[in-house]
Order: sequence, then C-alpha cells, then structure tokens
Amino acid sequence: MTKFFENLQPLRFDPESRDLAFRHYNPDEIFMGKRMEEHLRFAVAYWHSFAWPGGDPFGGQTFERPWFGDTMENARLKADVAFEMFDILNAPFFCWHDADIRPEGDSFAESRRNFEEIIEYFQAKMETHKTRLLWGTANMFSHKRFMAGAATNPDPDVFAWSAATVKLCMDATHKLGGQNYVLWGGREGYETLLNTDLKRERQQAGRFLQMVVEYKHKIGYQGAILVEPKPQEPSKHQYDYDVATVYGFLKEYGLEGEVQVNIEQGHAILAGHSFEHELALAASLGILGSIDMNRNDYQSGWDTDQFPNNVPETALAYYEVLKAGGFKTGGTNFDAKLRRQSLDPVDLIAAHAGAMDVCARGFKAAATMLNDGALETLRDERYAGWDSPAAVQMLQGDLETAAARVEREGINPEPRSGRQEILENIVNRFV
Amino acid sequence: MTKFFENLQPLRFDPESRDLAFRHYNPDEIFMGKRMEEHLRFAVAYWHSFAWPGGDPFGGQTFERPWFGDTMENARLKADVAFEMFDILNAPFFCWHDADIRPEGDSFAESRRNFEEIIEYFQAKMETHKTRLLWGTANMFSHKRFMAGAATNPDPDVFAWSAATVKLCMDATHKLGGQNYVLWGGREGYETLLNTDLKRERQQAGRFLQMVVEYKHKIGYQGAILVEPKPQEPSKHQYDYDVATVYGFLKEYGLEGEVQVNIEQGHAILAGHSFEHELALAASLGILGSIDMNRNDYQSGWDTDQFPNNVPETALAYYEVLKAGGFKTGGTNFDAKLRRQSLDPVDLIAAHAGAMDVCARGFKAAATMLNDGALETLRDERYAGWDSPAAVQMLQGDLETAAARVEREGINPEPRSGRQEILENIVNRFV
Amino acid sequence: MTKFFENLQPLRFDPESRDLAFRHYNPDEIFMGKRMEEHLRFAVAYWHSFAWPGGDPFGGQTFERPWFGDTMENARLKADVAFEMFDILNAPFFCWHDADIRPEGDSFAESRRNFEEIIEYFQAKMETHKTRLLWGTANMFSHKRFMAGAATNPDPDVFAWSAATVKLCMDATHKLGGQNYVLWGGREGYETLLNTDLKRERQQAGRFLQMVVEYKHKIGYQGAILVEPKPQEPSKHQYDYDVATVYGFLKEYGLEGEVQVNIEQGHAILAGHSFEHELALAASLGILGSIDMNRNDYQSGWDTDQFPNNVPETALAYYEVLKAGGFKTGGTNFDAKLRRQSLDPVDLIAAHAGAMDVCARGFKAAATMLNDGALETLRDERYAGWDSPAAVQMLQGDLETAAARVEREGINPEPRSGRQEILENIVNRFV
Amino acid sequence: MTKFFENLQPLRFDPESRDLAFRHYNPDEIFMGKRMEEHLRFAVAYWHSFAWPGGDPFGGQTFERPWFGDTMENARLKADVAFEMFDILNAPFFCWHDADIRPEGDSFAESRRNFEEIIEYFQAKMETHKTRLLWGTANMFSHKRFMAGAATNPDPDVFAWSAATVKLCMDATHKLGGQNYVLWGGREGYETLLNTDLKRERQQAGRFLQMVVEYKHKIGYQGAILVEPKPQEPSKHQYDYDVATVYGFLKEYGLEGEVQVNIEQGHAILAGHSFEHELALAASLGILGSIDMNRNDYQSGWDTDQFPNNVPETALAYYEVLKAGGFKTGGTNFDAKLRRQSLDPVDLIAAHAGAMDVCARGFKAAATMLNDGALETLRDERYAGWDSPAAVQMLQGDLETAAARVEREGINPEPRSGRQEILENIVNRFV
Repeated sequence: MTKFFENLQPLRFDPESRDLAFRHYNPDEIFMGKRMEEHLRFAVAYWHSFAWPGGDPFGGQTFERPWFGDTMENARLKADVAFEMFDILNAPFFCWHDADIRPEGDSFAESRRNFEEIIEYFQAKMETHKTRLLWGTANMFSHKRFMAGAATNPDPDVFAWSAATVKLCMDATHKLGGQNYVLWGGREGYETLLNTDLKRERQQAGRFLQMVVEYKHKIGYQGAILVEPKPQEPSKHQYDYDVATVYGFLKEYGLEGEVQVNIEQGHAILAGHSFEHELALAASLGILGSIDMNRNDYQSGWDTDQFPNNVPETALAYYEVLKAGGFKTGGTNFDAKLRRQSLDPVDLIAAHAGAMDVCARGFKAAATMLNDGALETLRDERYAGWDSPAAVQMLQGDLETAAARVEREGINPEPRSGRQEILENIVNRFV
Repeated sequence: MTKFFENLQPLRFDPESRDLAFRHYNPDEIFMGKRMEEHLRFAVAYWHSFAWPGGDPFGGQTFERPWFGDTMENARLKADVAFEMFDILNAPFFCWHDADIRPEGDSFAESRRNFEEIIEYFQAKMETHKTRLLWGTANMFSHKRFMAGAATNPDPDVFAWSAATVKLCMDATHKLGGQNYVLWGGREGYETLLNTDLKRERQQAGRFLQMVVEYKHKIGYQGAILVEPKPQEPSKHQYDYDVATVYGFLKEYGLEGEVQVNIEQGHAILAGHSFEHELALAASLGILGSIDMNRNDYQSGWDTDQFPNNVPETALAYYEVLKAGGFKTGGTNFDAKLRRQSLDPVDLIAAHAGAMDVCARGFKAAATMLNDGALETLRDERYAGWDSPAAVQMLQGDLETAAARVEREGINPEPRSGRQEILENIVNRFV
Repeated sequence: MTKFFENLQPLRFDPESRDLAFRHYNPDEIFMGKRMEEHLRFAVAYWHSFAWPGGDPFGGQTFERPWFGDTMENARLKADVAFEMFDILNAPFFCWHDADIRPEGDSFAESRRNFEEIIEYFQAKMETHKTRLLWGTANMFSHKRFMAGAATNPDPDVFAWSAATVKLCMDATHKLGGQNYVLWGGREGYETLLNTDLKRERQQAGRFLQMVVEYKHKIGYQGAILVEPKPQEPSKHQYDYDVATVYGFLKEYGLEGEVQVNIEQGHAILAGHSFEHELALAASLGILGSIDMNRNDYQSGWDTDQFPNNVPETALAYYEVLKAGGFKTGGTNFDAKLRRQSLDPVDLIAAHAGAMDVCARGFKAAATMLNDGALETLRDERYAGWDSPAAVQMLQGDLETAAARVEREGINPEPRSGRQEILENIVNRFV
Repeated sequence: MTKFFENLQPLRFDPESRDLAFRHYNPDEIFMGKRMEEHLRFAVAYWHSFAWPGGDPFGGQTFERPWFGDTMENARLKADVAFEMFDILNAPFFCWHDADIRPEGDSFAESRRNFEEIIEYFQAKMETHKTRLLWGTANMFSHKRFMAGAATNPDPDVFAWSAATVKLCMDATHKLGGQNYVLWGGREGYETLLNTDLKRERQQAGRFLQMVVEYKHKIGYQGAILVEPKPQEPSKHQYDYDVATVYGFLKEYGLEGEVQVNIEQGHAILAGHSFEHELALAASLGILGSIDMNRNDYQSGWDTDQFPNNVPETALAYYEVLKAGGFKTGGTNFDAKLRRQSLDPVDLIAAHAGAMDVCARGFKAAATMLNDGALETLRDERYAGWDSPAAVQMLQGDLETAAARVEREGINPEPRSGRQEILENIVNRFV
C-alpha cells in the first residue's frame, strides 16, 4: 500500500452517514432486474485524478503528488495509487489516455515501450482488483506535434504518428479487455479558417476513422468505437461539434453503423444544448454509446469539468439512457476534475463519492419515473393522432394528397395545451 | 405612386456623396467577368420591411404604416410601396412569406384566395419592374396553429395544413419565376423534451421534406429547395440547428443532392459559429445555396436581425462564396429589420443603401483578395505535403501501414508556424 | 364567481397527492419561529398570468382569455379571475404594473381614471380576500412613447410623463398598502451608443430616482423603493445591469440608504451571474430587498421567465436570503409565465403550485442547512486567521508595515484546501 | 545584438508595402495638434510576447525561446530580446508583471533581489532606448500561494505577501518612471460561494486598495493607479467584474477620485459589453485611464487575447477615447498573444505591426469623424429639448411638479426616429 490515501477506508453504503460514505449509491440494489452497479457502470478518469497538476490558463501547479515527474517509477506509483482509489470507491471501471499513464519518451519507440510496460503493470493489477477498463484513448492534443491537428494535420507525418498512436492504444485496450475505444479530437478543427482547408481536413478525419474501424475488425476487437463530440476548446472550432454534427459525419463516411458517441455533459452545454438533448438525439439516431458525466458551470464559457452535483439534471440524463435501453458497452465516466484548490487526498475521494451519490439519486428517480409511466402516458397521448391509419397513410403519401385534405375536409386545427409545467411537476415528484 | 417615399429618388452611385446614394455599390462594375449586381444578387425581405410593426417582447408597435390592417386593400397598397422601394434601391430581387403579403382568412380557402390575388398583383407589377423573386417561403410559425410545430406537429391535421401551405407557396414561387424555395422551421423543434417524441418528429420532418422535393419534380420547378438552419428561437431547440446538422438530416433522408442551405449570419452566430464557418462548411459539403445577410449583436443572445455594417466581416463571407464559385440560384437577401426606433421612411431606404454598400465593399475586397492569391498561396503551401504520392497512398491505405512508417522511418514531426497573424494582416490589406 | 377556473378548488397541502395539491408547501409549518408563509411571502405576477397573450417574437397570441380586449368591463373581469386564482393558490401577495390592470386611454387623464377605478375595485376585493399587495410598479417600456427611454428619454416630455406615471402608481401602491414600490427600467438604456449621450441619460435616471425617493418621504409612504437590475432586453444595454452596477449608481446619487434591489433569477443569469451571487452581493452591500423568482433556460440568451423547477438552485437562493435575515418588506414574486403552449386554466394553477412546492422544498433545505451549521462552520474555519489581533491590526495599518512582515518573519504561505466538493456534498445532504 | 530577430530591420512606414512595414501607422503624422505616436501611446506586453510558452488548457509549450528557463542569465537575455523588439517596432512603451521579468526565488527575499537586478538592467537599457514604461504590475495570480486570492485570501499571510509584492512593484515602477501602476485581480474573486465570505473578502480588497493609494502618496509617485476589470477567468467570479462594478467599489471605499480603470477589449466582451460601452461609461464617470487593446473571439467563452484586426471596432473605441480628451497617463497596451501555432520570431513582429496598423486606421477614422462632426451634430439634436430652461428646471424640481405638467399641458409625447442605421452609415463613411 502507498501512503497517499492512508487512513481512508473503502466506502460503505450508509444512508444516514455524515462522513465519507455512500448515502445513495448501493451497488447491489436491484432496478428493472439489474444491480445498480450494472446500470451505472461508473468509471474513474485517470487524467483528471492522477495526471492533472491543478493548473489553469492563469496559474500553474497546485497539487503536490508524490508521483509527479516523468519517470517510469512515478508511473508505477501513480498506478498503485490509482488502483487503491478504485478500491476505496469500489469503482467497476476506469479510463485512460496513453499520455496519462506513461512518461513521454524521446521517440515514438521509447514512448511505446514505456506505455506497453504500464499496460502490463495494469494487467497484473487487474488480476487482483475488480476494476475493469471502460475505455482507452489516445491523447493527440497535448504535445506540440498535434498543435495543428492529429488526423487533420497539414503534415502527413502527423497523420502517420496519429495512426501509430491509435493503433497502439487500440491494441492495449483490446489486451486489457476494454469495452470501448474512444476518439476525442481536441485539435481536429481549426484556429482560423484563413489557414485551413476545411474540406481536405474533414476528409482526412473521415478516412482516419474508417481506418480505425477497419483495424478494429481486423484484430477482432469486439468493443465499441466511440467519438466524443465537443464544439470548441482547445480549437476555435472542432469538427465533432455535437451529436448531430458527428451523425452527419458518420453518414458521410458510411460509419453510422460502426461508430457511436460518447457524450459529455459539459460539451453538450458548450455546444448550446442540454445534456438530455444530446442523449435523446443520439438515442433516436441509434448512436448512443457512453457518457462522460460532469457538469459545466453555467456562467463559464469554457470546459469546467466539475463533478456533477445537481440531482434533477442527472435524473433527466439517466431517464434518456434508460429509455434507450440502458448502457451496453458504455458507462458513466467521471470526466471531472477537482477544483484546483481542493488539494487533499480526501478531496479526491469525497468528490467521487458525492458524484456517485448524485448519479445514484438521479438514476433512482429516473427508473422510478419510467416505471410509474406518468410522463410517457402523457407523451403518448399527445401524439396519439399519428397512430390513426389516415395519418400513417398521409405520411407515406405525397404533398398534394395531404394538401388536398385541408380544403376538402375543412380542416382547421385547434391547438392543445403542451402541459409543460404539469410535466415538470411530475418530474419533481420523483427527483 | 403612393406618397410613402415621396421626395425620395432612385439612388445613384456617387462615391463622394454625403447624402443618400451608393458610395460603393456600382451594379455595372465588372469583377471576374460579371457585373457586381449579378454577383451580389441583393434581395429585399418583404416581412421586415413591410410587415413588421416594430414590436419586441417588451413593447408593441412603433411603426405607423398606411398599409397596416388586415385587408386586401392594404395588402395591395403594401405591394405598391414595396415595388416603389425596390425601384429606389434598384433591387434585383425580393423575397416573401405568404403571411407577409396577404391578410389571413377565416379558413384555408379564404387565405388561399387572398394569397393568389396578391400573387397575380405581383405578377402584373413584375412586368413593369425589374425586380425578380429570389425566393418564396411559407410562414408556418406565427399562427397559433403552428405553436407546436408544422410538419413536426403532434397533430396530423397541422401536417396536412402545412402540406397545403407549402404546396400553395411553391406553386406561387414557380409561377413568379422564383429562383429558390426556402423552408425555415422556426417551430420545427421543441420547448421541452418532456412532451416531445424527438425521433417521431424528426421523421415527420424528414418525410415532409422528401414530399416537398417530390412535388418540385412533379411540377417541373427548376429552382433550388433551400433549408435555413437556426439553432433556437422561437423554439428552445430547432431541428435545423446549423449547417452540419442539416447536412446530417439530409443524408439521413437521402436528400443531400436535392436540398441546399440558406445560411443567415445571425443564425450562424446564435449557433456558436462564425458566418464564414457556416459558408465554408456548406461549400465543402456541396450544399451552399443562398445567404441571409444581416448581423447579430454580439452581446445579445437573441436574433437581432440588424443590417450588416462591418466590412471586414462581409468580406470574409463573400470570400467563401466566391471560393465556392459564387451564387447560382442564390443571392444576398437582407433578412434585416430596422431598429424599432427608426420610424421614418428614409430610415428604410438608408438602412438598405448602407447595407448594400457594406456588402459591395466586402465583395470587392474579397474579389481582389482572391485575385491577388496571397492567401491561397500560403494555404496551399501549408498542405503541400499531402500532395506527395506517399501521402496520397497513405490516405488510401490501412492503419497498420501508416503506423508502421513511424518507427521504421524514425518520424518525429516538427511543428511549423500557422502564421495566423500574418494571414490576418494580408486580409487587412484588402478590407 | 367567474367560470374561468370552474371545478378548480383551493389547493390543499397533501404530501402524497398525485393531483393538484401542495406536496411540500405547508404555510403553517414553523421554521425558525415563523410560519413558512411568512418566510416565503409568495406573490402572483398580474402581467404574466393575466395580461400576457402568449406571443413571442415569431408568433402571436395563443391564449384565449375571456377578459382580453381593452375595456373596463374586461379589466374588472380580469380582476375577478385574478382574485379567484389568488384564493385557489392561497397566495398572500400579488404584484402589478399599471398597464396590466387597466385599458390604455387616449390621454394620460383617461388612462389615470381607468387605473384609479381598478385600484378601487382592488381595494374592495382586498377587504374580502387575504391577498395583499407585495408591490406595484409602472410599465414604462411597452408603449411606443417609451421606446427611447422613460426617465432617460431624449425628450423631456417623456420624463414628465414618466414622473406622472410613477407618481400615480406610487399613490396607488400606498393606498393599497403595498409593501414595496419597484422600478424596472427596461428602456432605460440604449440600442446604440451612436445616438446616445450616456452621461446625460444616467444623470436623468439618477435625478429621477432621487425625485421618487423625495416623493416617497413627502407622502409618508413606509414601503421600500426597489430597483430591479437587468443587463439587457429589451434594450441592448440597460443602465441597471446587475446588483453591483445598481449599487454604484445608488452611491453616485446618494441613494444607497434609500433604495434596495429586487433581484430576478433570470436577470442574474443573463448578466452572467448565478442567482445566489446576486443575492449574496446585495446582502453584503445592505441592499437586498425582494426577489423575482423564476428560472432562465440556460441554453437561451433571452429572458425566458419560466417557473422555477430546480430545487437545489432555489435552496441556494433561500440560503442567502436566510443568512441575510430573511425578507422584511420583500417576498418571492413569481415573475414567471406559462409556456405559450400551456393553454388551459389548469396550467396556470399547476405552474404556480409546482413553483410554490419547489420553493418550499428549497426553503426547507436552506433552513435545515443553516440550522445544521456544517457549512458555516467550515466557512468560519477558513477565515479564522483573520480574527487574530495581528491580522486585524494589519488591515488597519499601512502597506509598508504589512509588507515588512514578509521578509522579517520569513512568511511563505502554504495553500490549504478550499474543499469545494466536500461543501457541495454537504449541500446535497439537505436538498 | 541577440540572434533572435536577426535579419529583421526596424519597420518603416510604407503605405504600399506588401512586406513587413507600417502601412498606416505613421508616428509623426499630426492629428488635432499631436503626433499619432503621442495619441496612441502603444505598449508591448512583456508577458505574452516574452514569457508565455504557448500552452493552453489542453496542451503544453509550443514556443522555443532561447531565454526559457528560470535563471537570471535567461532573464537578461529575455530583456535583451525585448528591447530589440521594441526597437524594431519603434514602440514608445512597454509593460510588465514582476513574474514576467525575473525568476521566482525560494523566498520572497530572493525573488525580490532577482527582480531588483532586472529593474536595474531595464534602467540601463532605457538610457539607450526610447521605449518607456507605460505601467508595471504584480502577478498575484499564477503562483499557488494566490490560488484563493491575494488581498482577498482567507489567509492573512497572503495579504501580507501581496502587500510586499505590490510595494516592490510600485517602487520599481516609480523608479523606472512608469506612468501608471495597474492592479488586476485574477484571483480576487471566488470559485464557489459555498466557501466564500464575500463581504469580508470585498472589504479586504477595499482596504488593500486604500493602502496602495496611501502608499502612492507617501512615496510621491505621480503616475495613475489603475484597476483592470474582468468578470471571470481564472476565478468563477471576479470582484472587479466590469467598469460599473469597479466604480461602485471605488465609491464604497472613497477612491473614485484616486483610482481609474484600465479597460481591456476582451474583458469587456466577456462581461457582456462592447468595448466602446466600457470606454464611454468610464469616461462619463471620470475614471477612464488606459486600455488593453486586443480582441476576443466572439465564439469563444474564454479570454482569447488576440491581436486586434477589425478596424471598425477599433475606430469606435478610439472615438470614445478622443471624445474623453485622449489618453493622459494611459495608452494602448497590446495585451495580446500570438496564437500558439505562430512559432516564428517574425510572427511576433508581424502581429504587433498589423495590430498597430489596425489601431492607426481606427484612430484616423475616429479623429476624422470627430472633426467632421456629423455624428455629434445628430446626437446633440436628439437631446436638444433638454437644453430648454423648462427642461432644466424640471430636472431640478420635484416629482409632483413634473407630473402636474402632463395633464395641465395635455402632453402626449410623439416618438422621433432614433436614426440608428443612418448613424451607422455615417460611421462607415469614415472607417
């Protein structure tokens, strides 16, 4: 055992607790025939919790972690602490970027060897710990070689480097039994249109994603390939703006049956959407894969990646997930970081525990509300007219036939109440 | 002649003028082998200029217009004044919604008869005036029957009503020789997901658009069908959020070869994009149709529809239009309204004249910059590496092959300057 | 009794109800020695509930109300229905603008007579109903005479008209025993700086507010004068941008001891603040008067004025109110309107009932959290260093003395955790 | 000479140049009796140009500068290069934070000695270079000791450290003949209200600023003390939100005659204002000191600090500066950074040169427009009514007297056109 979390015990479920404990998250409680743990599928994000030093654009490191410093020894210590935290949290999953877990080498080969050694270190740990890999991904945005894009870079050598990096990370994800492989294109976009060939770059991105899918099939990887939309930041514009944009992109490159989305609350907000909108849209398009659960400060125009703390909001999110049939390969990854003033090890545990409780409360409300049916009944009533044979036929017919009905039948539609406030009251019965 | 614009003469081109005149817009000046008028293809929007009473969410009518009041006599007076304004401005085009030009009747049939009478009135006027119809469209958002959507309404009767309305407006557009038919779905979206079957509504919208395209072909209409993206307002969320969203939607319903977009500056801004981004994206996807030129106040979160007044911004917009080959059926529609305090007839003329000048300056800068080639040369240099046979081959190959190059060839890409400020300086040589 | 709310009975408190009832708002429950009704002091806003026709910038009237139409008979019917709704809701307060309650006349005198007649009608009703006036205010933004401002208008006659209007409304508020008089300056700002003498307009506004305060004292009105901040909309910029701006304005005109603020959730959001920020700031400056409780859609850039539905958010708001000692003359006014699709009378009742419940839950959580003390204890700990005599002395001393300590004492401050996530978890124990 | 800018010569004024040159900035051209250089008073910001490594929240260093690395030797090399750049740009001024110019030591004393040595190094350079100090300031936001605030820190020792730091920087600014001393409180705000005693923190800030002013007088420093407003970032909320907020704060602490504001374009935008609004407001309040000229990307919600490139916008800014009488101690500081992909030394020169040209064009337009008087004449006309004796008297009188006029004189104000579009056209004649 490292000393980092000393005196911190694995968290219990204790609804009455005023200390560190789960007050709502009870992994074994059954909803709709499945354990809560199997519904929520929580994952810890390696980057925020173990690799981030606490900086922001106006200030540097605030966290002191014994594993900081780019050596393999530190990388192993970081892994030791990470798995200790997974145990304390009873976390079923974790997620990583290559750059989170290994020191950068002087060449691709050296970085690769560092990475592979840590993957083996993980593999050994996973034999004695319950935590599994929800997804792996490649960090193709932090190093300056990616400053103008990875797959979309004007330099074909960076494309090659990106191919090598993704191949390496996919192999590792496959090896560790990771259930998904994620691509987030923080630099796949532009700073200014003035130096950008948008058409060419989008085609590079499309071809790259096709190559990723082809490789997946070649190696027999069974997990899902997920793209994570974000509108901007770090780039001024990112090609994977939001769910609708990614869907169009997938259609353009014939990938809509191969690739799904990993939707982040904060990214939805930055794109001008509610989280539940993005979830509902992805579900309706058949591409809902997984979620990055965090929250974005509503008054801040950048990605704040805060731990979720608003139960009504998480309830609406899980309601959409449940209506879509729940997670398959996906799960709830906490892509959330401590505030940079939250210096202590206990802050890391408390933040996750609180977030897991918030999600558990939201999930329970969503499941109960779905079982209750009050909301779905009213929704169905609203569209009942479309179930009539005449309506079905009209939708299959042509414009003139539909048009002709109006004067012939003297149609003059009367509006009916949308009952929004009543529906909001119903939700408030459950959250 | 009506008395509305009395004392206002047709505007001349006079670069030194301090009065009402075009100081930059010279319709006959040749650029790239075409007259400026043929490049810019200005259109006056009937709704803002003739139908809008000057209200906002906190206040009512400010404008006193002799044609206000829902009678056919007023509708004809409105048309008389409109064509007088087109003459003063030497406007090559105009645009309308059905609801702008005719009084609403007590039934669909009565509204239709009112509309058809005005269309004939227009037809007669167009024989003696130069102004042509850039596009027609149906207002399916103002009347309360559309409060929950037109094609996406939960009530199939509203779908039928919408079909009849669009058929009528398409017929009229066809009859008047309109060069495009536009659909803007201000209510095709939702106020709350709680009462919305998003999947069903999007399918209704998709089918409706297919029916429109089928009808176009049936009647032999040669103009373009255009969808106008907007992210929200009046709805909380609109399905045609932005260009990328519309593209995905068109792909989903097999319409990407049939339908293009009409892009509005203000809508781009509200969706979190620059105008030139939306133009460049649409051009790269092959769906750039026409533009609604206005500007949105950058500090206001709603659609301010102001006349454009920033030359550098219009220059970047026309640069994208010109790079895409210029307008075909499309043009520059001023979807811009007077500020509600701009009460006088002369304000209407001055606003359009100033906007036409701003566009003319922007267009001239764009054309000169494109001819100069400084920008395109630097852009081409930046991507030159992708023209090598090895790069072309890599893009056609597979992930492993691309990846293998990195260690084999010891690739270690060196970043090169993106030169954004230098490019911005180049632009400032022209605007 | 009118027929508008027929079949709707006064709402009961019934925690288990699935129908129209208060599930959380129990007016007689005691917290901190006062009844919940006395803490929350709910008010119904006449304008949204009875005067608003359901329009938005892209569409017209959706509501059919038997009292619509500008006659005195309708004004009385409107008042009858209003008081019936107050009874159904058991509302302790209501609020009005002059323009909500009386038809506009052809002259000031006629409008005044209409207004005075309705005030007497109210007076009679208030003798037999429990509902009292929380505040009155003048609508000086809807009529076109105010399009360029009321007190800040470039035309001194509009200033005079505004003086007459406010005098009339203050007299009426005084007569009805209203506990506050509110000024919201929707047009006290500008559309463009180009035509605005900002300095002169702000001086007009300052002098006007002084005149209001002087008049209050002259007539012996004991209620509070409240200014309601809003950053923009309808104006591009409003002089009463936010609480901090209003405070500076009050200081400039020597009114900080005379005038307080009425803070609206939606306005706080539009100004880039959280609601609790505005409350905490006003409390710290000693100018917290009253609140307009609603919510603003976080994805919409205009004033959505929705009924509140997020309990954690209302809890944080009431926590600030309670820390500041609770309301004195102020209260919780629902400056919230139905969605325009919510057509039915029952929607009006359900919206208010749901909002009252949301506020009640938030209030109870806030009161319990304050009693518990966990949050305040941690906050006090964080600042404990400032209670030392040396720290107190340093703050009273000069820069050099404070500076000298650093090298002399070898000070090298060690950061301590801000514990944000732990504090958020504490809040989630209560909401 | 260092080799950093080798081959780059001092920039000439050459209106026809297509190379690196000033095409518009002609320092000796006379406007209103003063040289353009004396009007614009350009300053180079040390931090962005020499200390920033090119990182963003998702990526690290992109710039390779020979002076990077925390040694005194590097600090001197950095100063050498800086003054070479000042010469190339013919920059009349520069600005610094302590942390930009010296390596951080292990103690306050060591940092102080490093700082004082560089100040002497600057002093020597300034004897042989024309560039003067526009302002100095203290970086009290980057080091983790300031993570919870400087003057507003919960730890009084950080207050002491801040006092020592500001004293040191003021002494150095005084010594170098700096014309202003600036305070920007990036951490003087909060991340969460939950752990914040807002009242106490604002009082600490107020007292600190009083101490700064007292110290200024004690040492006989004649420059201006400037506060720089910003709404947020890095903090969630900053106490110096915008100009109006700072004014209220100054009034609260009796400092409105002692302290002015340094207004940054990007901060204005982030606070929801136009730059010209903030300038006009500060001018009207008598606290306009200096400007930080940059631009903020309108689609990005964080501080992008880009070099200005939109002439119409800079013209409106300088118009307000000129109307306020021009700069006294203040000037135009480029608080602007290269995009992180702009790697080359020439980018640094081109960015400044382009920005200086954009400002020069804007300034010339503003000066010409002010001389022309068209705008001011129309503005004066609009308010002419207020110059009548009756209007002046009304403003000095009481509410009742003003009110009584309305019915007595049968006042019924007629709105007049605000002529916004005509005014915008006038502006476009000059920009």
